[in-house]
Amino acid sequence: MNSNDHAWMARALQLARKGLYTTHPNPRVGCVIVKDDVLIGEGWHLRAGEPHAEVHALRQAGEAARGATAYVTLEPCSHHGRTPPCAEALVKAGVGRVVAAMQDPNPQVAGRGLARLRSVGIEVSSGVLENEARALNAGFIKRMETGLPHVRAKLAMSLDGRTAMASGESQWITGSAARAEVQRLRAQASVVLTGADTVLMDHARLTVRAAELGLDDELTQLALQRPPVRVLVDGRLRVPLDAPFFQAGPALVASLGNEPAARYQAGGHELLALPTPEGRVDLPGLLRELAGRGVNEVLLEAGPRLAGAFAAQGLIDEYLLFVAAKFLGSSARPLLDLPLERMREARELRIVDIRAVGDDWKITAVPQG
Amino acid sequence: MNSNDHAWMARALQLARKGLYTTHPNPRVGCVIVKDDVLIGEGWHLRAGEPHAEVHALRQAGEAARGATAYVTLEPCSHHGRTPPCAEALVKAGVGRVVAAMQDPNPQVAGRGLARLRSVGIEVSSGVLENEARALNAGFIKRMETGLPHVRAKLAMSLDGRTAMASGESQWITGSAARAEVQRLRAQASVVLTGADTVLMDHARLTVRAAELGLDDELTQLALQRPPVRVLVDGRLRVPLDAPFFQAGPALVASLGNEPAARYQAGGHELLALPTPEGRVDLPGLLRELAGRGVNEVLLEAGPRLAGAFAAQGLIDEYLLFVAAKFLGSSARPLLDLPLERMREARELRIVDIRAVGDDWKITAVPQG
Repeated sequence: MNSNDHAWMARALQLARKGLYTTHPNPRVGCVIVKDDVLIGEGWHLRAGEPHAEVHALRQAGEAARGATAYVTLEPCSHHGRTPPCAEALVKAGVGRVVAAMQDPNPQVAGRGLARLRSVGIEVSSGVLENEARALNAGFIKRMETGLPHVRAKLAMSLDGRTAMASGESQWITGSAARAEVQRLRAQASVVLTGADTVLMDHARLTVRAAELGLDDELTQLALQRPPVRVLVDGRLRVPLDAPFFQAGPALVASLGNEPAARYQAGGHELLALPTPEGRVDLPGLLRELAGRGVNEVLLEAGPRLAGAFAAQGLIDEYLLFVAAKFLGSSARPLLDLPLERMREARELRIVDIRAVGDDWKITAVPQG
Repeated sequence: MNSNDHAWMARALQLARKGLYTTHPNPRVGCVIVKDDVLIGEGWHLRAGEPHAEVHALRQAGEAARGATAYVTLEPCSHHGRTPPCAEALVKAGVGRVVAAMQDPNPQVAGRGLARLRSVGIEVSSGVLENEARALNAGFIKRMETGLPHVRAKLAMSLDGRTAMASGESQWITGSAARAEVQRLRAQASVVLTGADTVLMDHARLTVRAAELGLDDELTQLALQRPPVRVLVDGRLRVPLDAPFFQAGPALVASLGNEPAARYQAGGHELLALPTPEGRVDLPGLLRELAGRGVNEVLLEAGPRLAGAFAAQGLIDEYLLFVAAKFLGSSARPLLDLPLERMREARELRIVDIRAVGDDWKITAVPQG
């Protein structure tokens, strides 16, 4: 490993992050090409069907790429997808060395890209800033490895773990900085998933709104180009089609399937019948269906009931708890409807990050074991 | 202000902190004496009745104190208490300059110490690292200013704001590092206050245990020299005298007073009758009584009911929330029994500190407005 590998890979990751809002179902990828410790080309993947990061970077480097080092945040692809394989492009350009942050979890690639490079004598290494690279594409990796998307549950709560008063009153628990962060989380997700309780109670639309993103013009434009699909779990179809949620644009509704879908189709929506034998909406089945459609990341924005059901079935990969510095008191609604009897049933978590967001705090926690 | 004032005052505060476990009812005070930017004397107050910090420092400095600068974390006293006034000692020693972190909130001092120094031509300034100095003696200051002690509520909770399962099962929510921190909080408090629920359910003794303090030998010895008074709120005297709590040493019991006190006295305990007209234990009255006895800091270690009553009456100055990274679920017990109906009744807090304590997190929050 060269002494500057980390720095150049950090630059490649920074480029990859520009694709935060647009690349799905593809992963976010960045690439820089360096010769004699001078940057000669860089690129990032914008969206599926358009050139990969390596292609942009090689174009910029031109003939100078010969003998240079290419830093890529993900193993270069070896298969013909919608674009030709990047491994071939790197071979053709005559680079001398390729450094990847991680292997591609895509079973169609899975080390074959790096093997192809090695086979022609290119020096290859992998694993530089791998944790950062994996975090950037947690959804893509999970979908490739398990056939399920990465599910982030966003919950806004008081310091005593409550989400709303008993009456349902819940507006503005957290402040404007937290709401802007939620807007960005929506924009980066492939799907925003919610339940009938939330849509009915809060008149929620779950849309991405340019003015609330708090991003610069370039990123705002990118975020708006590919808004997340809004998915509603509504077993008994309680949400009327004239609700703000449906008026805000086409949506996918997961139900028990006891109604013809035509009414929904007429409004541009899709109705998906996913009943379990117990008469509930099949949540794992819904996630598999979404992954099958190329969904990498799901942002779950739901009330205690639906979020509790996801938690109880072990379907949440990451909790994003926005904590307001206040007590809502003991008659207020719980974070999750998740009744447990014994301490040994407690759900163990690992807190991976705590940071201030305006006057609120964001705690990121992942389930353990 | 001289350029090194902050650094010397920081040293004086460091010395003052050595008195964390022993000075009450006095404040923690440190003093350093500096001449030509060289330290020539330092001292700290160990316990009531023994010399004040200034006296130790002046003794160490000896004749060299003439013309030197004295840094003290609290305005030197001007009154004859159990020891002669420190302002006089500084005058006699001939120091040229006195820098205080803060004025003494004690109405018997309140600027008179600094005024006395000024009256003989000593250069005087106050307010250097005042916030740090005030934090170190929050209890002493509150008692002097309001006649009430500073109440810290220690609560151990899960990330979803729960303190125990519905069954009462609650052992080991947090880990050993958090428990050691609680031991140190107990040791620094003048009083550890609890309720019958906690003592009956957890067989709690609320004692300070040397092996669990996690302090060095010197500080462990200091912490054990002056253990906190253990106070039990037990209106209906539900806790039997053979409970571990009473067996662990003398205690003060606040009750409704419906029983002769002789049985308690025989066991070395004190019974205090503090009924309100509504038939509850008068919590503000108890705090006033404790302050009258020289109690600066109360550590409240109670279940949701008693802690909720303190919170509802606005008697808590500081919340220390030890948060375990787990969910106990929605049927588990709340942080505080504090039923609120409307969002506008929510108790606003300000989070002043979040830090890792072993595998757990400690959130310090203070009520707002």
